[in-house]
Amino acid sequence: MDKARVTFFPSGRTVEVASGTNLMEAARKAGVFLDAPCGGKGHCGKCRVTVKWGWHRHENTPLLTEDEILQGIRLACLTWVLEDMSVELNEIDVVNDIMVEDITSGQSKKLVKRTLDILNSSGIKLGTSLRIVPVKLPTPTLDDNIPDLERVQRELKNILGSERINWTIDALRKLPIVLRECGFEITLTLLETKNGCDVINIVGGQKASIFGLCVDVGTTTVAACLVDMETGEIKTSANSGNLQMQYGGDIISRIIYSTRERGLQKLNEAIVEGTVNQLIKEMIKELAITEDEVVFSTFAGNTTMAHLLLGVFSENIRLEPYIPGFRNAPHIKAADISLNINKNAPVFVLPNVASYVGGDIVAGVLASGLWVSDETVLFMDLGTNGEIVLGNKEWMLTCACSAGPAFEGGEISCGMRATKGAIDEVRIDEHSLRPEYRVIGNGKPKGICGSGIIDLIAEMFLKGIINMKGKINQAVKSDRIRYNPNLNCFEYVVAFGCETKDGLDIALNEIDIDNFLRAKGAVYSGIRTLLNNVGMAVTDIDKVIIAGGIGQNLDIQNSITIGLLPDIPHEKFEFIGNSSLAGAYACLISNEARNKVQEIADSMTYIELSADPTYMEEFISACFLPHTDMSLFPSLKNALNL
Amino acid sequence: MDKARVTFFPSGRTVEVASGTNLMEAARKAGVFLDAPCGGKGHCGKCRVTVKWGWHRHENTPLLTEDEILQGIRLACLTWVLEDMSVELNEIDVVNDIMVEDITSGQSKKLVKRTLDILNSSGIKLGTSLRIVPVKLPTPTLDDNIPDLERVQRELKNILGSERINWTIDALRKLPIVLRECGFEITLTLLETKNGCDVINIVGGQKASIFGLCVDVGTTTVAACLVDMETGEIKTSANSGNLQMQYGGDIISRIIYSTRERGLQKLNEAIVEGTVNQLIKEMIKELAITEDEVVFSTFAGNTTMAHLLLGVFSENIRLEPYIPGFRNAPHIKAADISLNINKNAPVFVLPNVASYVGGDIVAGVLASGLWVSDETVLFMDLGTNGEIVLGNKEWMLTCACSAGPAFEGGEISCGMRATKGAIDEVRIDEHSLRPEYRVIGNGKPKGICGSGIIDLIAEMFLKGIINMKGKINQAVKSDRIRYNPNLNCFEYVVAFGCETKDGLDIALNEIDIDNFLRAKGAVYSGIRTLLNNVGMAVTDIDKVIIAGGIGQNLDIQNSITIGLLPDIPHEKFEFIGNSSLAGAYACLISNEARNKVQEIADSMTYIELSADPTYMEEFISACFLPHTDMSLFPSLKNALNL
Repeated sequence: MDKARVTFFPSGRTVEVASGTNLMEAARKAGVFLDAPCGGKGHCGKCRVTVKWGWHRHENTPLLTEDEILQGIRLACLTWVLEDMSVELNEIDVVNDIMVEDITSGQSKKLVKRTLDILNSSGIKLGTSLRIVPVKLPTPTLDDNIPDLERVQRELKNILGSERINWTIDALRKLPIVLRECGFEITLTLLETKNGCDVINIVGGQKASIFGLCVDVGTTTVAACLVDMETGEIKTSANSGNLQMQYGGDIISRIIYSTRERGLQKLNEAIVEGTVNQLIKEMIKELAITEDEVVFSTFAGNTTMAHLLLGVFSENIRLEPYIPGFRNAPHIKAADISLNINKNAPVFVLPNVASYVGGDIVAGVLASGLWVSDETVLFMDLGTNGEIVLGNKEWMLTCACSAGPAFEGGEISCGMRATKGAIDEVRIDEHSLRPEYRVIGNGKPKGICGSGIIDLIAEMFLKGIINMKGKINQAVKSDRIRYNPNLNCFEYVVAFGCETKDGLDIALNEIDIDNFLRAKGAVYSGIRTLLNNVGMAVTDIDKVIIAGGIGQNLDIQNSITIGLLPDIPHEKFEFIGNSSLAGAYACLISNEARNKVQEIADSMTYIELSADPTYMEEFISACFLPHTDMSLFPSLKNALNL
Repeated sequence: MDKARVTFFPSGRTVEVASGTNLMEAARKAGVFLDAPCGGKGHCGKCRVTVKWGWHRHENTPLLTEDEILQGIRLACLTWVLEDMSVELNEIDVVNDIMVEDITSGQSKKLVKRTLDILNSSGIKLGTSLRIVPVKLPTPTLDDNIPDLERVQRELKNILGSERINWTIDALRKLPIVLRECGFEITLTLLETKNGCDVINIVGGQKASIFGLCVDVGTTTVAACLVDMETGEIKTSANSGNLQMQYGGDIISRIIYSTRERGLQKLNEAIVEGTVNQLIKEMIKELAITEDEVVFSTFAGNTTMAHLLLGVFSENIRLEPYIPGFRNAPHIKAADISLNINKNAPVFVLPNVASYVGGDIVAGVLASGLWVSDETVLFMDLGTNGEIVLGNKEWMLTCACSAGPAFEGGEISCGMRATKGAIDEVRIDEHSLRPEYRVIGNGKPKGICGSGIIDLIAEMFLKGIINMKGKINQAVKSDRIRYNPNLNCFEYVVAFGCETKDGLDIALNEIDIDNFLRAKGAVYSGIRTLLNNVGMAVTDIDKVIIAGGIGQNLDIQNSITIGLLPDIPHEKFEFIGNSSLAGAYACLISNEARNKVQEIADSMTYIELSADPTYMEEFISACFLPHTDMSLFPSLKNALNL
């Protein structure tokens, strides 16, 4: 087969592929990131590139105009390499932009304090099984010539008594060198287990630093913190996109990709090496520490993310009867999954409840305090998909809504994650029908994130631009409303090219709105189904706690207006932020919290929506603005004068 | 720096190196094996190659004649690459010749039976902690949808009770696939430990095979067996040279090499990947089994070999006060040292006694039965170096003699391992002074192994060709005796080029004899020093058990004649073969044997010869034929009519 070389700009990365290779595959092989929420099926239009030169074949798509085709713009997933090519990426690679953040302020700080208060008030003690043990050894002589390992053991016996010490190959390999670099004064980091003490790290001198890593493995966004394990203090945190996005935006696309040849391995590498190890690298640089000083780790993610993180075959999650490989992951070490922290550091993965309710939700329940609440709480994690938990300290029901990545901007033409350049708030002037918007980072906008889309749809609805079905009222006259011939539908322009970052119009079209309505409908019908299961109404909910990647600027009233949230008094709502990360943090600094999350996971009752007889009807009714049954939205009914 | 390409024939392997690189280094980089017992110092002459073309620089050496230089013959370690070169190896790469053997017959079978008899008569039970557990699971349904791991756990609880099961990442990764390939009928291989049961392997169906690997890691030769762990039967065995030989023939050269940049890693790779993994590959091919079915392993080697096997820094072994990194290796798994058997298979390394008495000797003590003997036994392991143990069931003294690799043919110009093509028996006709010899494998000879050299020196001494100092009597007239102008010494030709494999004369020169006398002197003086330590004479020894690579054709009388073995009645001697491998085998099939070798190692008293006041004098006296004190060799005194 003929070979062709493809060069991607601006990075200049080059890859050799067989003639006939899909351009998306070539980009993956070159290590060039192209967003692909739809998994490369030609549906989402996110993988736009410009072909500068080179013979290739491409398939027609309504997502590109004739003008764009003439300019050389292509969707990478619908383009095949025939000869050497030069390709320019239209978007700067944002998924790999690691943001190192000061988590010690604002929302995150509040959540950490909230979580610690809950642990404290419910009697869950902080504290780990890590021990720092300085050891000063007599220098060997011809008369006292026992080997290095037995010399340390002899001294440890004096310090620790008869406790069994488990050495790893890694600790043994370091020992002879560290001992002699530091005049036979060393400090061991030990982890007490049921079987004695494991030697995790050895350093020279009479002091050692110990850090812990906690990670929220989101389908779209991955967030991590490094924690001082002596004080429990968060020292730094960072987040970035999940590099698995190039294999599909939602978990189903990724599970399907994982069944391809080497697919599981590629997805595993994308999360571990491509994402988490990069975050670790930035954070340890920030703190000027070594990988070996990071001696414990915890991970919270949905069931599929947990499987892909550990490299466990995940296809059965999506095939009936939906069986995960594991609920509680075995006791593994960082080296088992090629995590770039201390090789012997334990890796604790928060337990899954079911195929579509994972450790991130269990973490959220822990951090939100639902499990100790006297009141009936509705906990909602609105990230990619949307999982909800209803209950209190006596009982918990949970379900997963197949909302897809819409709340994080996925499968929306102008959608993006809640990061720099995203429009996260929108108002539309009643008379001019012109929008006002806020941009994260205050620069020019690049797209709209979840909270912005909610505002936009609510405002379009309230200002009469769209009807209950989400269709644009063609009778409304505005330069913002126009027909999109490629998509054969109408759209509303939020920002014209002259005001945007990359010169392209940002517009929300009817297909986008339809996608978003199905996402919010999935969540609202999930809430109703859980309530139906216990014979409750929305008015019986005492408190709604919202977490997840949808962003802290979520407007409660607008969310009620579009029928995403139940129509109950605003003071019952609380947005707590990334509760998955907060739960992982709690498990990092508290042995008892790790036991508690296992109890919580065991006590949650999972409702499979697709098997629930009332669900489908609920879903269809919830795909309208706000709902077909307006009696569920009394305040809105009044406001709209219905 | 300029680059040059070097191609080695007959393999055709090519490597690119910087101009000025040593040709030995280039060969190592190319993965081409060149023997280098002296570690590349230009002393031993074993790295002869023929330069076919290419500009290079070479240093003069007495080890090559002018004629040979004209023919393009060089020592690789004294040659430096300047431009592209083509090089032919003069010797076929024998170190990599893996010999798969039928160990179920002859000497080895006898030793295995002997070892088992000793275990049996001393009450050491056979038996391991491996369990084969077939599990038949109910197929998952929507109503019984617990995850795969918990499904197996549920069933195991019924079978094993409340025992804790420890899953590894590797077992978890296999589980979902194996379960569905085999209709939810699987068989687990479990290892019972103090902390529950470790899952070592999972296979489909209701049956599993389990094998164990035992290895003798010799400095020169590595031997291994695969054992059926259900019956304890040895199924196949194989041996080859230790690929570390290219970094030096003795342990001191290797320790020095290990301190170079990446030296430790290269030596570790040479033994694990280059040698042991190759033996494993051949043996599992032979038995048509998979790597995963090999679920336990044991290793016996000297202290340095054990360190290099585990990748532990070993320089302190040779620096006063001679401190090894470890005596008892920690509990490690095959994956920890990249051993190509089941990743979770435990690796048991027999314990060391001191820097120069290692697990191979402890294995030998176990297999020889010294530790249960009422009589006073002298155990001698004559391989590279030579370690000896004196004692009985009450006490044990041990020491290491710095004999170097001479007993395995190292540092002897015509020396080679006891493998195909080696002369292993020699007689010299009293009148003609012509030799008769036997060749292993019955083909043309390539060199002489340890037992052959002993015969040759004894015969030369008895027939008056050499004197007590090992110098050739120039008055003796024979076409076999000649002056070697390059080495400036005399030599005796055992085989002329017309009768040898590669057309080169096989001759033993005075420098060779001197090297061998120092080796045998080191051993005999070691024996005397141990005896002196307990106030005993050679006549107090009840039994001499000889093991090691010197070969089973060792002639006892000739060994006494040259002063290697004590002059006591022949019936007191027994040659048992590779007792290091036999001990490793015993530890593989018996948990109790593994505990016993630790007891044995702890109870052995190590005598450091270099610190013993009488040793130096003993050594000098023992470097003669047979000894300066002929009263120690009464039978010989009579025979020689002294």
